[in-house]
Order: sequence, then structure tokens, then C-alpha cells
Amino acid sequence: MADGKKSGGSAPPLSGVAPRLGDLLRAPTGPVDLSAIDTAGTPGFTGAGKADAKSLAKPIGRQLAELQEMLYAEGRAGGRRSLLLVLQGMDTAGKGGTVKHVLGLVSPMGVHYHGFCKPTVEEREHHFLWRVRRQLPPPGIIGVFDRSHYEDVLVVRVHHLVPDEEWSGRYDVINRFEAELAGSTRIVKCFLHISADEQRNRLRSRLDDPAKYWKYNPDDVTERTFWADYQRAYSDVLDRCNTEAAPWFIVPADHKWYRDWAISQLLGEQLRAMALSWPTAVDWDPDQERARLDGDQP
Amino acid sequence: MADGKKSGGSAPPLSGVAPRLGDLLRAPTGPVDLSAIDTAGTPGFTGAGKADAKSLAKPIGRQLAELQEMLYAEGRAGGRRSLLLVLQGMDTAGKGGTVKHVLGLVSPMGVHYHGFCKPTVEEREHHFLWRVRRQLPPPGIIGVFDRSHYEDVLVVRVHHLVPDEEWSGRYDVINRFEAELAGSTRIVKCFLHISADEQRNRLRSRLDDPAKYWKYNPDDVTERTFWADYQRAYSDVLDRCNTEAAPWFIVPADHKWYRDWAISQLLGEQLRAMALSWPTAVDWDPDQERARLDGDQP
Repeated sequence: MADGKKSGGSAPPLSGVAPRLGDLLRAPTGPVDLSAIDTAGTPGFTGAGKADAKSLAKPIGRQLAELQEMLYAEGRAGGRRSLLLVLQGMDTAGKGGTVKHVLGLVSPMGVHYHGFCKPTVEEREHHFLWRVRRQLPPPGIIGVFDRSHYEDVLVVRVHHLVPDEEWSGRYDVINRFEAELAGSTRIVKCFLHISADEQRNRLRSRLDDPAKYWKYNPDDVTERTFWADYQRAYSDVLDRCNTEAAPWFIVPADHKWYRDWAISQLLGEQLRAMALSWPTAVDWDPDQERARLDGDQP
Repeated sequence: MADGKKSGGSAPPLSGVAPRLGDLLRAPTGPVDLSAIDTAGTPGFTGAGKADAKSLAKPIGRQLAELQEMLYAEGRAGGRRSLLLVLQGMDTAGKGGTVKHVLGLVSPMGVHYHGFCKPTVEEREHHFLWRVRRQLPPPGIIGVFDRSHYEDVLVVRVHHLVPDEEWSGRYDVINRFEAELAGSTRIVKCFLHISADEQRNRLRSRLDDPAKYWKYNPDDVTERTFWADYQRAYSDVLDRCNTEAAPWFIVPADHKWYRDWAISQLLGEQLRAMALSWPTAVDWDPDQERARLDGDQP
């Protein structure tokens, strides 16, 4: 399953883990041919497969939980930094599964999740970034966007919901917005890359199990007829909005176990790159506080 | 550790689990003498201790995750119901730990966490329930209040932040508010009951470990001098706001493992009592959809 490719450098933090997964998954510079990127690939994963990946969830989870708590602590201590994970992908690509299995590894106290649906009447009356700005993570928090402002150059483009000149100007608007945001927020954008066949399998499994009916929407099949248009729209997003301030990562997502492993690993790398530490500078004296504590009589 | 007490009735869903933990933890009717309730007790837990409780986290977590997803599915399918878990307790009682270890068992997608701090200037300009109403869980969601509107009859009372006649009128206001809310939201209120000695231990451990400095606040020691006042204020809350629509549960919380086990178990009972099921009534035909899916050519 794993391709064994390594990017070299320092020792991996965990066995079976490539040193810099982000380097392997980072969207290339320039036009992106999505059809050339294997949706069933497992770049950077050096284990034997699903069982190995699942067994890593616990140690990676412990690391993520500690990193998340450090970020939270920093926010509580007056720091301004946060992290924003943007999840995009075709229907069934696994955005919800990622939230459950990756963000589920850290305390809900430190996570702000928001799913962006079809804009409401109120939202449509505002600039397309209005509803996005309202959901940005506060200091110390990991924000998760399940869909995002990118829908405004994806579904909006594919279905001609606004004139061409309008959506085509949005790439630059998004880049400026993200560059500004990056002053305080580490932005990590993941495109969950699945094949049309895998999507069919997943939709079929929803139709075959009444417990999954609620996830099924007949429009999803209609949307499949626009598959090529969406891939083109995603290509342009990955080309035009893949900046240093807000990089895109392409995560092969036909294998759910790889997707979860890769995104948890990537999130860990990104948090480590923030050089977080416990805020230990305090304006009180530990010895004095210990004395106060021992001396009191509640 | 465990007191072996059982409330009888149907078979327990998991070994080591009392059938109705809620019955054991429900605050009594009438005045509550908190000093008579053992903060180190483990009511309802029939296992041998910490290791047993921790080993139950996985199976209980699986149950909770499924119940949470059913609630979420119901919300997506047009249902109006939600659940609100209110966590109250003295500093260090374990509200944050509960969020991490109990709510961490379900998908962050289905959880809306909010911590209520000292009111902002804007919040103080409004009715005390204003900021609370803004954080209520939408349909399908488990809301978690880390502190809540109860602070307005706790800290506010202990420190005389408003005149007596003002806070003393709030019990009835809260009961009316919760009764109205209970039309759509199952309300579960947990008082995390710790001893003053255990609080001292926990504060000391924060002083002994620089990685925990960020959790320490010198005011916490000052607050300890009001311990008896707080216990009285909690007693009145547990007496006056313990309604059928919004019951209070008293969770002995000196043992973190018991607290986590008990609240996850209680949450499971409460969700089961909602008689949730997968929404299978759909306005499309599975066979027809399968044919559409098989026939398309993206």
C-alpha cells in the first residue's frame, strides 16, 4: 500500500511516519493535473496498511492532544495565534470522517468546527467572505472549516451562480484575505482527493444501509454529472490559491485510513512548526502561592 | 472503590454499569446537604477501580458516538431536538477534563462547546440569560456549557455583585427559561462535587508543574476562602432548580476516573432516553437512486 517514499531529513517522530509529510502532499506549483495524482495512493506512509495506520492513531492522538493544549494555553496566556484547517473535496470525500477521526483526537474545548452549507438569504446579502470571517478561530483554537470560502469559486463557478467576471476575481480576493489572516492564523488547506468510482461506492453504501439514508441526497448523483467541471475548478483553486501563507495539500482519500493518518500527521507537523511551548512566564511567585495555599482554611 | 449499589430494573447495557446511574446521582428533593455527600464516592460503579473504568471508555465511547450521530442525523432530517450538558463545580472540579475525556468520545461535528467567563461589558448590558441563549445548541447538536447561567446565582451571590433581591429572583427565572427550553432540548446538569482538600491538591499540582502554570490563577486561592459560601450557594441551586424538565445530578469528582465514567454513562442514558433512531423516511426511492447512480457517467 505504502510507496515508501521518504523526503529525508531529521528522524521521524514516530515509526512508520515520514519526516515531512507536508512536503509530499503539498500541491505543486503551477497548473495541477488532478487526474495524474493517484486517489488511492498512500504517500509517506511506510507501514503495511490499514491496521498499522489505525495503530498509530493513539500515539499521534496523544501528540496532537498535547500540541492542541499548548496552543490553547498560549491563547489563554494572551497569545494571538490559532490554526485553521480547511477541508474541501467532492461529496463523500470524507470531510465529516476527518473531523470525527482526526479532530476527535483532541479536546472539543480547543476546536471550533463549522460546516458551510448553501448560503442563507442573509449570507447572500453580504460579501462572500462575511460568513467566513464570523467563523474564524479565536486565539488558541483550532478552527475547522467543512467546506469554506472556496465553494465561492467551486459550486458557484460550476453552476454559474454569479457572472464569470465575478467568481474569477475571487482568487485574488481569497489570497489577500488569507495573507492577512496568516498574520495570526496558521492556515492548512486539504483537498480530499477521491475518484469518481470511489464516490459511486460510497453513495451506493448509503443507499444500501437505511442507517445511512440521512447522508444521501439525490442531488449528489446530479452533481456527479458535473465531475469534470468540478475537477477543473479544483485544479484552478489548487493552482491559484496555493500560497506560502496558506498552502494547499492534496490528500489521496480513497483509503479512509490513509486520509485519517495523513491529516492527523500533517496537523501534527503544522502545530510543531508553530514552535509551541507551555507559557511559563507568570506574574506570581510559585513559592508564595504554595504558602498561601497551604495556609488557607476554607 | 465502588459501592456496589444498584437501582435494579433491566439488564445493564455494559458489564460494570448500573442500570440507571441517573437515579443514583439525581440531586435529592428539598434542601441539599453537600457535606453529607462523599466527594470520593463512586456510586453505581461496580468495577474494581480506575483501570476498569478506563477500560470501559472505549465501549461507552462507541455507544456515545453512535447516539450522538443519531441525534445529528435527526437534526439534519428536520428534527428539532438537541441536548444540553451543563457543567458546574468549584475551580479544578474537572469541567475541562470532562469535556476532553467525555465529549472527546464523540465527533466534534456534533458538539457545541462554550465556556462562560466573567461577563464582558456588552454582556453585562443585557439580561443575564442573553449570552446563554446565544450559545444554545442547534437541532441535532450536543451543547456543552462549561459554567453557565448558574454563575449568576453563584459567584454573583457570593461576591454580592448585584443586590440580594436581584439574584434571589433568578431561580424562578432560570426554571422558567429551562422549562421553555426543554420543549426541544434535553437538559442535563452536572454538579462536579470535589472536596476542599482535593482542590488544594489540584491547585498545588499546578504550582508544581510549569506546564500547568497557565491553569493557575492566584484568585483561585482567594476564592477558596469563600468555600462555605459557595457550598451554600450550590446547595440552593441544587434545591431550587432541580426540576423534572432540567434535573441536577451530583457527580462525586475527587476521582477523575469516576467522574469521566459517570458522566459518559449518564450522557449515554440520557441520549438513550430520547429514543433516537436513524431517520429512514425519505422522499426518494432507493432502487431508483441506485439505477441513477449505476447509469451515470461522470
